[in-house]
Amino acid sequence: MSRDSGRFWRALSSLRDSTGNRKNVASEGPSIGMSQALKKTIGHRGIDPTGETVYKKTTSSTLRAAIQLGITHTVGSLNQKAERDVLLQDFEVVESIFFPSEGSNLTPGHHYGDFRFKTYAPIAFRYFREMFGIRPDDYMYSLCNEPLIELSNSGASGSLFYVSRDDEFIIKTVQHKEAEFLQKLLPGYFMNLNQNKRTLLPKFYGLYCVQAAGKNIRIVVMNNLLPSAVRMHLKYDLKGSTYKRRASPKEREKAVPTFKDLDFMQDMPEGLILEGDKYNAVCKTIQRDCLLLQSFKIMDYSLLVGVHNIDQASREQDTEGDVDQTRPQVQKSLYSTAIEAIQAESGGVEPVDQ
Amino acid sequence: MSRDSGRFWRALSSLRDSTGNRKNVASEGPSIGMSQALKKTIGHRGIDPTGETVYKKTTSSTLRAAIQLGITHTVGSLNQKAERDVLLQDFEVVESIFFPSEGSNLTPGHHYGDFRFKTYAPIAFRYFREMFGIRPDDYMYSLCNEPLIELSNSGASGSLFYVSRDDEFIIKTVQHKEAEFLQKLLPGYFMNLNQNKRTLLPKFYGLYCVQAAGKNIRIVVMNNLLPSAVRMHLKYDLKGSTYKRRASPKEREKAVPTFKDLDFMQDMPEGLILEGDKYNAVCKTIQRDCLLLQSFKIMDYSLLVGVHNIDQASREQDTEGDVDQTRPQVQKSLYSTAIEAIQAESGGVEPVDQ
Repeated sequence: MSRDSGRFWRALSSLRDSTGNRKNVASEGPSIGMSQALKKTIGHRGIDPTGETVYKKTTSSTLRAAIQLGITHTVGSLNQKAERDVLLQDFEVVESIFFPSEGSNLTPGHHYGDFRFKTYAPIAFRYFREMFGIRPDDYMYSLCNEPLIELSNSGASGSLFYVSRDDEFIIKTVQHKEAEFLQKLLPGYFMNLNQNKRTLLPKFYGLYCVQAAGKNIRIVVMNNLLPSAVRMHLKYDLKGSTYKRRASPKEREKAVPTFKDLDFMQDMPEGLILEGDKYNAVCKTIQRDCLLLQSFKIMDYSLLVGVHNIDQASREQDTEGDVDQTRPQVQKSLYSTAIEAIQAESGGVEPVDQ
Repeated sequence: MSRDSGRFWRALSSLRDSTGNRKNVASEGPSIGMSQALKKTIGHRGIDPTGETVYKKTTSSTLRAAIQLGITHTVGSLNQKAERDVLLQDFEVVESIFFPSEGSNLTPGHHYGDFRFKTYAPIAFRYFREMFGIRPDDYMYSLCNEPLIELSNSGASGSLFYVSRDDEFIIKTVQHKEAEFLQKLLPGYFMNLNQNKRTLLPKFYGLYCVQAAGKNIRIVVMNNLLPSAVRMHLKYDLKGSTYKRRASPKEREKAVPTFKDLDFMQDMPEGLILEGDKYNAVCKTIQRDCLLLQSFKIMDYSLLVGVHNIDQASREQDTEGDVDQTRPQVQKSLYSTAIEAIQAESGGVEPVDQ
């Protein structure tokens, strides 16, 4: 197995537990502090003297601006191209556009350094977005017309994470090898989408590269696995392993911790009860997803299970009233765990159960 | 362009002309004689002293038996495997089974020499057959439980052609390079089927190899482009070229000749009249098919247009009555031209307008 194929992917199964799960869940606490919480440099990610996050020497604000300028341009120019079928060659295409700070015929001026923006497999990702029901205008609006929110507790991978304000999209920096690996997987990903419509694998919406200050910063745009629209009362990250698979004390302090296999076995000895046909559908989908991951030689993945307890939600709604609809504080808290769901571990094939 | 990519594919557009095409068509004549008509060796195909066709030293009857034993086995063993999604790797799989004449644990005895039967990309072709609505039992029955009919006037390619008795399937021998080329195209073919549902490109149902007497005989199973169920009163093979694109005097002697571009321009100066939405659908489909062929670097293809004249058909039915339902003579006559629709020219990139 190649080193880059041992990355950590999670499939999401968001289950609404209507069968009366009795577990007590700690009430939502205050959200965890943002950028200030990051004290050290991990991988390419660090903090500059002003307290701003930097990634490969580019400040987070510059990177966000470049991403927004770049995606606006690439989606806009794609909109002008006629719809056509995706061809095998399209998976290997890389489009590139230069953004000088003074502007050009094709690009607007901006207040940052010159940069280049590359779009990987634009036609293929347009097709994927369409398959996922993402309209081009919505994609562009959500990512480019609203500020991107930086997520602080981004885990040990050294990646930088942003979420769109509407909570739909996650942007994540990926390493060269990861981007290359994802690009190589695209034909198989295409095949899976066409056959396994209920797939629980991450939804990839775009793969881009910002070339700034002589460095390549590759980013992937994905679905937010646990958007705030549905509050999850319980979360489990399941690997099918029992080796060190218990949530850390630090994780347990969170408002809604992400528990692990040993916690699940202890708290839910009978598992989750699903209706027969739903159970069969979920199992079949997971089997198909696992077969695909296996064919990609990916073995280090887990299933993220979110449980929305309907009884509890209705009690919460009674006490919280309308606040429940917007609650920005709770959103941040949700991000703080959901983010783990899509992160690539910095290690390769080593166990990641630390 | 590689030599093997210049092969001759045809897309079929079978149009029913309900707009009152006035052309007179020669009435159906007697069918053209079968095997005896072949006098010389072309490519790998020849005639042995008894008058039987041989291909790479294997007699046609032996080849037919091997094909039927092989397909029975491969479809049967595939039926026992659970349905699962096609993976990218499946396009490269080759399954092989040995058929000793005395039989084995896995294979029945037979009266021919030992042979080996190879199935290319079995899971992928199972998926294609399913997409095309071909049930495994029907596939096996049509090809293996009824005699395969050898077609005599197989053109200049040196290929051997069989048709299933129910007129659904064509089996054609292909050269090593062609088989390799087809296998390489399978991922793109998969992608086209999933996007371009109305595609008029040939339907590939299976790719196999019979290893007999130290020789490899590769065959492809395809749809019959002009099955006899609908009588075509006019046929045109259109390339979009006017260079030597007129049906030969010999072709014109046939009951229903396949005319070419110059004939079409002369006989139908206004073209074929289609309803607006049908016209748009056909044009769009042809554009998408051509884009795919272009991406495969195939440029030497043509569109086979069959015209079924409803008025003429109803007149024919009045005079022929029930005979029209079975008419084996007419069937043979139809094969005699339909066959050209799927043949690979023996040359590579050379013009095939001779």
